[in-house]
Amino acid sequence: MAAAQPTHILLIHCPDEPGLIYKVSGIIYGHSLNVVRNGEFVERTWGHFFMRTEFSGDIDPAFLCGEVRSVLPATADVRLTTNRPKRIVILATREYHCLSDLLIRYRFNDLPLEIAGVISNYDSLAQLTRQFEVPFYHVDPANRSREAHEEAILRILEALAPDFLVLAKYMRILTPGFVENYRNRIINIHHSFLPAFIGANPYQQAYQRGVKIIGATAHFVSEVLDEGPIIAQSVIPVDHTQDAREMARAGRDIEKNVLAHAVRLVCNEQVFVFRNKTIIFD
Amino acid sequence: MAAAQPTHILLIHCPDEPGLIYKVSGIIYGHSLNVVRNGEFVERTWGHFFMRTEFSGDIDPAFLCGEVRSVLPATADVRLTTNRPKRIVILATREYHCLSDLLIRYRFNDLPLEIAGVISNYDSLAQLTRQFEVPFYHVDPANRSREAHEEAILRILEALAPDFLVLAKYMRILTPGFVENYRNRIINIHHSFLPAFIGANPYQQAYQRGVKIIGATAHFVSEVLDEGPIIAQSVIPVDHTQDAREMARAGRDIEKNVLAHAVRLVCNEQVFVFRNKTIIFD
Amino acid sequence: MAAAQPTHILLIHCPDEPGLIYKVSGIIYGHSLNVVRNGEFVERTWGHFFMRTEFSGDIDPAFLCGEVRSVLPATADVRLTTNRPKRIVILATREYHCLSDLLIRYRFNDLPLEIAGVISNYDSLAQLTRQFEVPFYHVDPANRSREAHEEAILRILEALAPDFLVLAKYMRILTPGFVENYRNRIINIHHSFLPAFIGANPYQQAYQRGVKIIGATAHFVSEVLDEGPIIAQSVIPVDHTQDAREMARAGRDIEKNVLAHAVRLVCNEQVFVFRNKTIIFD
Amino acid sequence: MAAAQPTHILLIHCPDEPGLIYKVSGIIYGHSLNVVRNGEFVERTWGHFFMRTEFSGDIDPAFLCGEVRSVLPATADVRLTTNRPKRIVILATREYHCLSDLLIRYRFNDLPLEIAGVISNYDSLAQLTRQFEVPFYHVDPANRSREAHEEAILRILEALAPDFLVLAKYMRILTPGFVENYRNRIINIHHSFLPAFIGANPYQQAYQRGVKIIGATAHFVSEVLDEGPIIAQSVIPVDHTQDAREMARAGRDIEKNVLAHAVRLVCNEQVFVFRNKTIIFD
Repeated sequence: MAAAQPTHILLIHCPDEPGLIYKVSGIIYGHSLNVVRNGEFVERTWGHFFMRTEFSGDIDPAFLCGEVRSVLPATADVRLTTNRPKRIVILATREYHCLSDLLIRYRFNDLPLEIAGVISNYDSLAQLTRQFEVPFYHVDPANRSREAHEEAILRILEALAPDFLVLAKYMRILTPGFVENYRNRIINIHHSFLPAFIGANPYQQAYQRGVKIIGATAHFVSEVLDEGPIIAQSVIPVDHTQDAREMARAGRDIEKNVLAHAVRLVCNEQVFVFRNKTIIFD
Repeated sequence: MAAAQPTHILLIHCPDEPGLIYKVSGIIYGHSLNVVRNGEFVERTWGHFFMRTEFSGDIDPAFLCGEVRSVLPATADVRLTTNRPKRIVILATREYHCLSDLLIRYRFNDLPLEIAGVISNYDSLAQLTRQFEVPFYHVDPANRSREAHEEAILRILEALAPDFLVLAKYMRILTPGFVENYRNRIINIHHSFLPAFIGANPYQQAYQRGVKIIGATAHFVSEVLDEGPIIAQSVIPVDHTQDAREMARAGRDIEKNVLAHAVRLVCNEQVFVFRNKTIIFD
Repeated sequence: MAAAQPTHILLIHCPDEPGLIYKVSGIIYGHSLNVVRNGEFVERTWGHFFMRTEFSGDIDPAFLCGEVRSVLPATADVRLTTNRPKRIVILATREYHCLSDLLIRYRFNDLPLEIAGVISNYDSLAQLTRQFEVPFYHVDPANRSREAHEEAILRILEALAPDFLVLAKYMRILTPGFVENYRNRIINIHHSFLPAFIGANPYQQAYQRGVKIIGATAHFVSEVLDEGPIIAQSVIPVDHTQDAREMARAGRDIEKNVLAHAVRLVCNEQVFVFRNKTIIFD
Repeated sequence: MAAAQPTHILLIHCPDEPGLIYKVSGIIYGHSLNVVRNGEFVERTWGHFFMRTEFSGDIDPAFLCGEVRSVLPATADVRLTTNRPKRIVILATREYHCLSDLLIRYRFNDLPLEIAGVISNYDSLAQLTRQFEVPFYHVDPANRSREAHEEAILRILEALAPDFLVLAKYMRILTPGFVENYRNRIINIHHSFLPAFIGANPYQQAYQRGVKIIGATAHFVSEVLDEGPIIAQSVIPVDHTQDAREMARAGRDIEKNVLAHAVRLVCNEQVFVFRNKTIIFD
């Protein structure tokens, strides 16, 4: 998927109408651009069209976008990006498994991203992070109001200028104001199969309910806790022999993989958000 | 699992204390009974002991139970049953897939049960049921109060004397009084991954939430809707291309298998219920 | 997926070159046809293009195909079909689960097909089949050479004129001559996770190898046993407590679902075969 | 599972006969030992009995083993171990994902083990390993015969005295002589769903065969390549859009988890090997 040469990705969504594929593919063909991968989808309930085209070739991005917009409905959303590594910042608390998995993948170029920094309300993962030559910022919430704590984080984020934030088991709730700054740009991993077990201690909840399968959900953060658009989910079987602590341990293995998978999809610009759901292209 | 010769199944649960396995296995060994399969489990949170022993051999059941009780704590629950086909009655509405799957398995002896009858609030599945030489009872809720409707069903059940009831997509809520008559003896299939999407239209709810996995849950019915002890669950992946109707169709395949699996476990006496959870022996 | 009104399905594959989507979508747009679903795929290793377009609207099929061919490379394969129920004939032996699952689905319109008949080398499933008002043909291989036996089946097939054959646990190997008559039109279910455990008694093989997961594979039949293009696969976990018979029983549940899923894909014209692999459109 | 206080684990297997559970549990009860977890299994084909008992309490190991042996058939295998972290040595080549996953788990005490060292035929993972304060040994096969290369590894192993070896994507075949030194003590991860795709380049083989599911298998190494007893397997779905490189990337996620899971089972003494299969206790 990570092409050797940089490619462009054209992302379109707009109300559906006849001829959209024909018109857009005509523009790309007219410029002799080389399509690597193309996909489109029509959401039937709302009659909405989505298209993602990966192509290579020399083109002025602004000019191409203008041309594409000229053949689409006025409300169309058109974006052209380059298939480059994204800058992410990771927010963590004390759990190591998601953070370390992302650090390892970063070190060995498994994901199309650069980790600009790790911010945590604890310093227990500082050594691990620095081992991978990634800056670590400890922002202690003690003696700080919630707003002052977030303000301190936002100042660091301003300097780091990430494309996306990744909450790698960040166990604090972000304020709506914070979330608004990064609309559909914050990826969280929740340690349950949403919408089951929203909120705190999902493994304890799962244990008490006696479920036979547990899960993990990667989603964009919205202003409502654990209600944002779901990007990826995964599950594993459990049984009565496992207590909440054992479920948590088993769950860590899927949490880290689901989060990494979601981060990959987002960094590859494969994900559209529409009415609190995701549309994901291959 | 279905042994050629009939076997006995000894089911014990009681507060845990040292020596329980030793004492019970001593009684079985003393009678020269032949153990086919043995399992035990200690629930740590409550310190509760569970044991299931399948054995063959000549023994007076009441005598053996008395002996076993004499070595256990006074509050012990001891049950000895024979590994015989159970009598079940199925309650259905209009969906065909779970009912037909059970009828087919019954015809070809795939499950250790006998279907004594099918009761439905519609008559649309009458022909299918009778094709398999199973009595069909149409109990029309029209012009009947909820109580009168249940009363009519209970009268049929009294005559049929089932060991267990199976709700094969029975889309009506049973009253607590009805449920109390068949405590931990009514198996329901809910078309979601409980506790996600409790109540009506779970596939519509799943579609609207934009989940990436859907599921089905077989559970014992308790007085609280969709809150009874879970016996088995299964899931399948879905994506944005599937609407609620397509999710429902995909879900039917796992619903019927999860229900049949749960029915098999219950009919084989493999399931203990303890504090709203199930403990399931191989 | 099964649209209320009949739709057309345009199926194209040819060597890839720039502009194919543009040219084909232009023809469809030019006739004011209403695209319901569109997909395309380029196989990179061989540079081969695949496209599937479902659309509604009035059009002369031969004329449209001609137009489409005129803008494609000379070796292009172009097919236009109507989204109608397909005629299938099922070949079975003595196992009931796949056959009965297809019969039930047929009765309740779950699959876009009509079962024109069931042919078996045993008569044990005759009653079941006829219960569903489907003709049953017992072709006894006793006192017949393999060729004569196949010849008898072929004569029945000629009369029934199916679009596809479905081998629902048909435990005999078909001759290359027979297969050639129905190239990529015979769907088989093999009770293992191919290419593991080719040939006879896969569950016995799985038990002896001590695998922890077993599976089922639906594939097109080719002249080499169990080597044809794979359409769908599914798996379930097993453990050391299950013997070969118990694995077989557990496997039946996935066999029937995988086969039904593959039959649905094929009847919906969602499957291309290319160099012994399948390309499957949503 | 990892108890706070050290516990003992009694491991027994022998030909089955009546009364074994009674006799062994009687000895444990007689010494007032506190059973934490108990399991037994009878393999029916060969009539072989397996028992695993975890218990705490003061006892002389040799004395207890003697007592237990005295009530079992003469050929019984009896082992009593302490639930202590095991010493492992990892053999790696150049792939980072399994090694790094084990290093991370070791650092954060997720597995009951100590990594005594990493040996590789390349030096590319030296820095990563040393970051985690684990000794790294580069044993270059260049200018060495296969025997001399293994000899060099064996000398390091002698000094490190591991309980188990873990092949974390070690891409060389070990000689039967080497394997014999560590019978059922070498855990390998094979990047396919064995017995499918034995040998080199399984993802390339899977891509060429066009399978719809790929897998990973952790197994003990025996003298026959990829034929040793299977400990754990896992799978993920793939489709025609993924080439061999993308399958390999997707597979890495399950490889590392399956290997870690198998290592956990083995280090916890949960695995018996019997006639080239594993019996695994909860």
